Amino acid sequence: MGAGGEVAERQAEAAAVRPIALIAGSGDLPLSIAQALRKRGRAVFVAAIEEEADRDYGDFPHVRARIGAPASIKQALVDQGCFEILIAGGFHRPKFSDIALNLDTFRVSLAAVMGLRFGGDDSLLTRLAGVIEAQGFRLVGPRDVVPEMFAEKGVLGNTRPSRRAREDIGLGTETLRKMGELDIGQALVVVGRRIVAVEAAEGTTAMIERCEALRASGRLRAAPPSGVMVKMPKPGQEERLDMPVIGPDTVRVAARAGLAGLAVEAGGVLVVDQATTTRLADEAGMFIVGFPAQ
Amino acid sequence: MGAGGEVAERQAEAAAVRPIALIAGSGDLPLSIAQALRKRGRAVFVAAIEEEADRDYGDFPHVRARIGAPASIKQALVDQGCFEILIAGGFHRPKFSDIALNLDTFRVSLAAVMGLRFGGDDSLLTRLAGVIEAQGFRLVGPRDVVPEMFAEKGVLGNTRPSRRAREDIGLGTETLRKMGELDIGQALVVVGRRIVAVEAAEGTTAMIERCEALRASGRLRAAPPSGVMVKMPKPGQEERLDMPVIGPDTVRVAARAGLAGLAVEAGGVLVVDQATTTRLADEAGMFIVGFPAQ
Repeated sequence: MGAGGEVAERQAEAAAVRPIALIAGSGDLPLSIAQALRKRGRAVFVAAIEEEADRDYGDFPHVRARIGAPASIKQALVDQGCFEILIAGGFHRPKFSDIALNLDTFRVSLAAVMGLRFGGDDSLLTRLAGVIEAQGFRLVGPRDVVPEMFAEKGVLGNTRPSRRAREDIGLGTETLRKMGELDIGQALVVVGRRIVAVEAAEGTTAMIERCEALRASGRLRAAPPSGVMVKMPKPGQEERLDMPVIGPDTVRVAARAGLAGLAVEAGGVLVVDQATTTRLADEAGMFIVGFPAQ
Repeated sequence: MGAGGEVAERQAEAAAVRPIALIAGSGDLPLSIAQALRKRGRAVFVAAIEEEADRDYGDFPHVRARIGAPASIKQALVDQGCFEILIAGGFHRPKFSDIALNLDTFRVSLAAVMGLRFGGDDSLLTRLAGVIEAQGFRLVGPRDVVPEMFAEKGVLGNTRPSRRAREDIGLGTETLRKMGELDIGQALVVVGRRIVAVEAAEGTTAMIERCEALRASGRLRAAPPSGVMVKMPKPGQEERLDMPVIGPDTVRVAARAGLAGLAVEAGGVLVVDQATTTRLADEAGMFIVGFPAQ
């Protein structure tokens, strides 16, 4: 082994014993990741961002942090001996004035990375990930540290998709793959072999809720339960910062919208709180299926 | 001239003096078409469909008609000497049970054609157009009888798109052209070179309203007015039954959503009530631009 290999090995060892810094935005995902890390025996230190993080991180070493004070976040992570940083959850897009170029602190990286997670600007995300690493940290994604949170191939839970649902899944996956190069969204809803909703900036939950409205207005007459929400990553998506997710909320809104189930790319979509997600789907008679990546 | 040419010529002459049958669904489009026909000196007979047509057709010879009584609609059109039929406006998708195959009356054609105008099933629309013609009528579209209602190339009204808006228009048209083969929608919204909303079954108005919600929630931070709604026909769209439209309502919701303007394919998108549409855009400081078809 050469000197470079030795250095890398020592770095990896060192990284594994240091707590992972989890920068937590809104929703269940950051909490679910913290729990998965603990289950693996991995230490975690949570920086719960004010006005974003909306779950209780009292079970974990944590600090409440303001997005406007990136230098103090950086200091906290240094004090805790963190080397790996994982950013998860929802963040509001900051005003342009927040994205000041100040490489001496975290200002550019955190404010901009967090803010820009909504939307398709993957090249910017990639560039900003580089800025974080230039600060002496390593940006990691769920695949690096909690790969078990990704959907597996096959049926999750007790309900299997019908033949009609499998046809909808086929059309949905085919269409999303063709849309991949267009840098729009990563999810759509197909009902009766017709694409009735496409996600862009509104997010998956809002897109599914639209189908409930379409049914109520008579624009979507297929009797519920019918239709499938299909979700996969975009090609080249910055997967440390913007992985597609489903979870309990997805199942709840899909059940209200009368969908027959959810189909996600195995290994490409995170399942938040898999136990609750599966239980809710079973109770609603909905399927959740992981289809193979192409 | 051969015998076939003579017959065709005589048919064309006969058609031009007979009133056009306008099957009117919801919204401003059917009324706007009736007014455009009158302006051209062309007679029109309106069959205003119950629970759909929501404008006052008292200025025109008309009948209120139930979608469930297609035989009586057919008889009224025969009594009026109609040969050409134009179907316009919004219709709710009928229940599957309404689409009974009964070729002796209009049952199959009207109920199914009208109901299926929501959504992308162009092959079905084309097939049903054939059924109408098999009944001895000719199905015509706006392009055949009121071509002046289509958007022209260039700027409509007093406001011109900025350089940033032109960039958004460029991305929007490019993306819609690539999406054409996917049979999804015919419109999207681009803000700051980012696609923030894509239309599927919900319709253009609902899609634009979503951008208002995105701005309110902070997911879309670009200061208004900014962003463009871009709309064009899908390739192979059955243009007698499903033409893309903008009109006063489109301008109203776009102004509320803080968009800078609307961009539509010249010759491919109908402008309902062009005078009001232009006036409202001028008052809101919004541009409306017709871009050339590729």
